[in-house]
Amino acid sequence: MQDARDPRTESPPNRSKPRSRRLPREVRERQILDAAVQVFARHGYHEAAMDEISEVAEISKPMIYAYLGSKEELFVACIRREANRLIESISGAVDADLPPDEQLWRGLRAFFEYAQQNRASWTVLHRQASTQGPPFAAELSAWRRRALDLVTTLLSRADGTEEDRQVRHEQMQPFAAALVGAGESMVDWWIEHPEHTADALSMRLMNLVWMGFGDMVQGRRWKPD
Amino acid sequence: MQDARDPRTESPPNRSKPRSRRLPREVRERQILDAAVQVFARHGYHEAAMDEISEVAEISKPMIYAYLGSKEELFVACIRREANRLIESISGAVDADLPPDEQLWRGLRAFFEYAQQNRASWTVLHRQASTQGPPFAAELSAWRRRALDLVTTLLSRADGTEEDRQVRHEQMQPFAAALVGAGESMVDWWIEHPEHTADALSMRLMNLVWMGFGDMVQGRRWKPD
Repeated sequence: MQDARDPRTESPPNRSKPRSRRLPREVRERQILDAAVQVFARHGYHEAAMDEISEVAEISKPMIYAYLGSKEELFVACIRREANRLIESISGAVDADLPPDEQLWRGLRAFFEYAQQNRASWTVLHRQASTQGPPFAAELSAWRRRALDLVTTLLSRADGTEEDRQVRHEQMQPFAAALVGAGESMVDWWIEHPEHTADALSMRLMNLVWMGFGDMVQGRRWKPD
Repeated sequence: MQDARDPRTESPPNRSKPRSRRLPREVRERQILDAAVQVFARHGYHEAAMDEISEVAEISKPMIYAYLGSKEELFVACIRREANRLIESISGAVDADLPPDEQLWRGLRAFFEYAQQNRASWTVLHRQASTQGPPFAAELSAWRRRALDLVTTLLSRADGTEEDRQVRHEQMQPFAAALVGAGESMVDWWIEHPEHTADALSMRLMNLVWMGFGDMVQGRRWKPD
């Protein structure tokens, strides 16, 4: 914390390293995005007012425009940041050295926990982004592709066959699409049935995709270690 | 075809039977809806023009308004009719006397075949309806609830346990939500990978939800009878 060197006599810092004066800007941008996600989730893109975002963020409107651009650009920045957060929290939960079922279980749990603890983020990503039509379609399909790619990679690891990695990755794509859609749809259902826990939802999806109905109807269940 | 009876001396027809003069209206309404589904699928709700619907249907605009109301009412009528068609084609394919895996297989195949053979219908139901926001949200959530209810009922039949029917139906809801979302998401993927057949897609989803990854990674596959 304490640096005895006199900055005035210090040699110039490495140019690629962000200067400390940029920090306030990063903090402000984070405040703006946090506020915007809340407001977009609450009202939807069209009804959300920059005035309310400015109020919640406690940052003036001209400064919001200067930092993050128009309302449209702000919405795109929200989708991008929230998609990163969700994808990082899933991939961070999954350790490639674990057995495949344990990887899948941890990934599913991270997903449902994210959706529970970051409801506004999920609403913006899943509902607001998809209902706002053409201007955001590119950003939306980019994030869905990344989600699909993450799940495809996770599933490819679970497939113990000796096939070529590329072929395996491709074969896993429709399964990954199924799993992504299953998760999204279960969260929609969950929002109307909030009495269930993230663990209970993860366990159901885990049983569906790991055990399958064929085992479930005969009473066989998957259980974590 | 040839009816020798003189209609003028005929006793009045059963009142509950639609009179033949209503037939042209039904036919016209069908033509209008067929055209509207094509045009809404092509351009989306906002960009779709009543002029184009009138042209494709070969029915004048005033007659379209007289029969099916405003553009908004016409769109709602499209969602309603197409949802009925899809739900009927799935439930029609599934015979309650078949073994549970066979029921699930037939249901999935009917779904993917419908999405393939009725692309415009699927686009209106899945993409256009969900991206048009508030005015259609009620119709959309009504049809999703019906789809969910159909799948929940199918899955409840598959569950061989002795539990009370009501409890079983409720327990199956999150699985049904997962399955509905999985199917929707696979069709989205399929549209970008049209080289796959409806059978191949159905077989993948069947294996995922009946066998599960636990079996699949060990090379066990579900096969139809």
